[in-house]
Amino acid sequence: MEEAEEILTNLGKQMCHKFEVVDVDLNLLGKVAGENAISTENMPRTRVSTKDGYAVVAHDGAKIKAVIGVSLAGSVYNGVLQPGQCVRISTGGVVPEGASAVVMVEHTICTKSNDEGEELEIQIKDHVSDGTNIREPGSETRKGETIVRTGTKIGSAEFGILNAFGIKNIMVYKRPIVTVISTGNELVNLDCEEVPVGMIRDSNGPQLVALFKEYGIDAIAGGRVSDDFECIKEKLSQSLKQSDVIVTSGGVSMGEKDNLKEVLLSLGMTIHFGRVMMKPGLPCTVASGQIQIDGALPTLKIVLALPGNPASAWVCSQLFAIPLVRTLSGYVKPRHTQMRVRLAEDIKLGDRPEYVRAYLEDLGNKQCPVAHITGNQISSNIGSLVGAEVLLMLPVKLDGKEYMSKDETVKAMVL
Amino acid sequence: MEEAEEILTNLGKQMCHKFEVVDVDLNLLGKVAGENAISTENMPRTRVSTKDGYAVVAHDGAKIKAVIGVSLAGSVYNGVLQPGQCVRISTGGVVPEGASAVVMVEHTICTKSNDEGEELEIQIKDHVSDGTNIREPGSETRKGETIVRTGTKIGSAEFGILNAFGIKNIMVYKRPIVTVISTGNELVNLDCEEVPVGMIRDSNGPQLVALFKEYGIDAIAGGRVSDDFECIKEKLSQSLKQSDVIVTSGGVSMGEKDNLKEVLLSLGMTIHFGRVMMKPGLPCTVASGQIQIDGALPTLKIVLALPGNPASAWVCSQLFAIPLVRTLSGYVKPRHTQMRVRLAEDIKLGDRPEYVRAYLEDLGNKQCPVAHITGNQISSNIGSLVGAEVLLMLPVKLDGKEYMSKDETVKAMVL
Repeated sequence: MEEAEEILTNLGKQMCHKFEVVDVDLNLLGKVAGENAISTENMPRTRVSTKDGYAVVAHDGAKIKAVIGVSLAGSVYNGVLQPGQCVRISTGGVVPEGASAVVMVEHTICTKSNDEGEELEIQIKDHVSDGTNIREPGSETRKGETIVRTGTKIGSAEFGILNAFGIKNIMVYKRPIVTVISTGNELVNLDCEEVPVGMIRDSNGPQLVALFKEYGIDAIAGGRVSDDFECIKEKLSQSLKQSDVIVTSGGVSMGEKDNLKEVLLSLGMTIHFGRVMMKPGLPCTVASGQIQIDGALPTLKIVLALPGNPASAWVCSQLFAIPLVRTLSGYVKPRHTQMRVRLAEDIKLGDRPEYVRAYLEDLGNKQCPVAHITGNQISSNIGSLVGAEVLLMLPVKLDGKEYMSKDETVKAMVL
Repeated sequence: MEEAEEILTNLGKQMCHKFEVVDVDLNLLGKVAGENAISTENMPRTRVSTKDGYAVVAHDGAKIKAVIGVSLAGSVYNGVLQPGQCVRISTGGVVPEGASAVVMVEHTICTKSNDEGEELEIQIKDHVSDGTNIREPGSETRKGETIVRTGTKIGSAEFGILNAFGIKNIMVYKRPIVTVISTGNELVNLDCEEVPVGMIRDSNGPQLVALFKEYGIDAIAGGRVSDDFECIKEKLSQSLKQSDVIVTSGGVSMGEKDNLKEVLLSLGMTIHFGRVMMKPGLPCTVASGQIQIDGALPTLKIVLALPGNPASAWVCSQLFAIPLVRTLSGYVKPRHTQMRVRLAEDIKLGDRPEYVRAYLEDLGNKQCPVAHITGNQISSNIGSLVGAEVLLMLPVKLDGKEYMSKDETVKAMVL
């Protein structure tokens, strides 16, 4: 399993990253910065008050100060403050020239006001030192500083800071083009009303397209193809022209109709592995090859040929396809976040590392969340995927350790 | 904090859930089932082989069996098997009538074949019992069984099973209509080239719209409004007509321009809280009211009036707005998943529970991930949001416990 992951990681690194400059709009979300975004100005740009109160000359000795103006957020006081004077200021207001601190309104008393109730003089209750309640220019971000690093995924936070600095476009990693194809003579279209005996609807295709969509990739729905060698070869050849990565399901077991590996070899691709010691997903196959299209320079393309059982195809996609596609999309951390969870029941261990679908129950602050298995884990059972929040990462059994017990903790991938 | 969360949870429950019937297509992803989806047929529909091998009559006593046909996935053998006969079968193939087990090809020897190399007789190496390597009809899902429960979020897995059963539409929770509004005289539009002294670009608005989008909600960008009482009132009145939830930023502190609470009261809304003991986000305000529009029956609307500091607005949205909107969208678990993380450094505790932005470093299988703080956590520092993967949930300080130390573990919300 580790070997398989390493092979895929290396393949991902060998593929050329592509970049594109895009506008800073909502379509940017989920993409990865391909350059450092640099602040265009200090943040804050001027000295700004962090409190509602009075801007004062901290060390002028005066306990009583004349209120000579107002500086509110969005409305600046342009004069220069002299000793003995102060300016009423609000949070976010620009601190006037001459002022060295802001006294919170709670620490002052109004000692004189005019007929309209406007304060003319205030008294400061306590000593205040220079810089109090003032954000200095550039204290949060200096002009020229990197605000979003290459390799950072642009979420709402990063989107916000780009907007705060008025940055209008940014270079990002171009996402790979992924095509999903289902193979199998037994497959019929989803909209088939009366499925003949021995046939099933192709749910793998839509399911995997949906999985990629959950991770921000608009995969191409490549449809289905029979088990026939020539048909698969034709389908793959066509799809390789338009795709960086192809994900297929079916046709990789040891049966007589399992032609996919032969097709991959006939296309001049190298099969890196055709079997992974994992459950589900034993026949999971990965191939790559330099594919030349229309006389252009050959480019590296990857085919993930996954088993046809729906649980296998989905779990293998989570384990291999998503990290690969994220790597190609520029993610520094392409893998799922992992956490520890507590088992709600005894689980028998097997000869292969097993990825068990489970949902979580949160028992409050003190403990790990408790993981409950989502029903029959047979790889053909598509129902075992429903409601899954994590994949438990069960180790192989050892002599004397054939079970993991209720309340033991185990690592899990957050889906 | 718990009180605030409880108030919001209750408000969410009071608001009417709305439902709609939608097609099972990629737009369904992220919506929550508003009805149980029921399987329309057994899965598998017929007896199906789980292995490549031979379908046999398990107890016919014959060690040598005549191969009388083939049953492949997608190509059925329609005869009835008699004792002493067998049918070659592939994984997923329909088990013929009369057969009671499938023997794996590895457990057989071909004892006679014709001139074209097709096997005519095989020998079974070991005893096989009834039912071996056969999936019974309905063994995974019985016809009439619930395949996706009300309240389940439709992800790729759920999407797959709906497709597998040919289900074409489903009732889901209608998502609430959310409008995001920024308040403040100091705000200028994002596309402002030369921002005047004392003014800042309105990044909160786009940032919160982006945050909702990350969680699948296409919030309405309501733009910005000055701090003027009447302007805010007009803006909110208009927005309440088209929204279930309004999220504002700014105008909720104690300053003289902080008119938002007064506006909410003047609109006949009830303020449930106007201050939360949390950091950042102390002035976070929640109001609700039965709002009547154009003579229709009054309906409950909620306004989340968040602080104007970007870190506060974003963190409060994560803590309050997202769970609320998820509740209204039908989520059974509206809150963020929580996990335990290990601190990479000492952290000083404060008088309020604090939500500290951090990113994770995974140290492999044995330990909790290690959490590193994302820079200066002052609420005005939008940069403190960049790269955050979790919100550390720091408790308040106690006598004798003013710090959390490096390597202590703390709960964190996964963003």
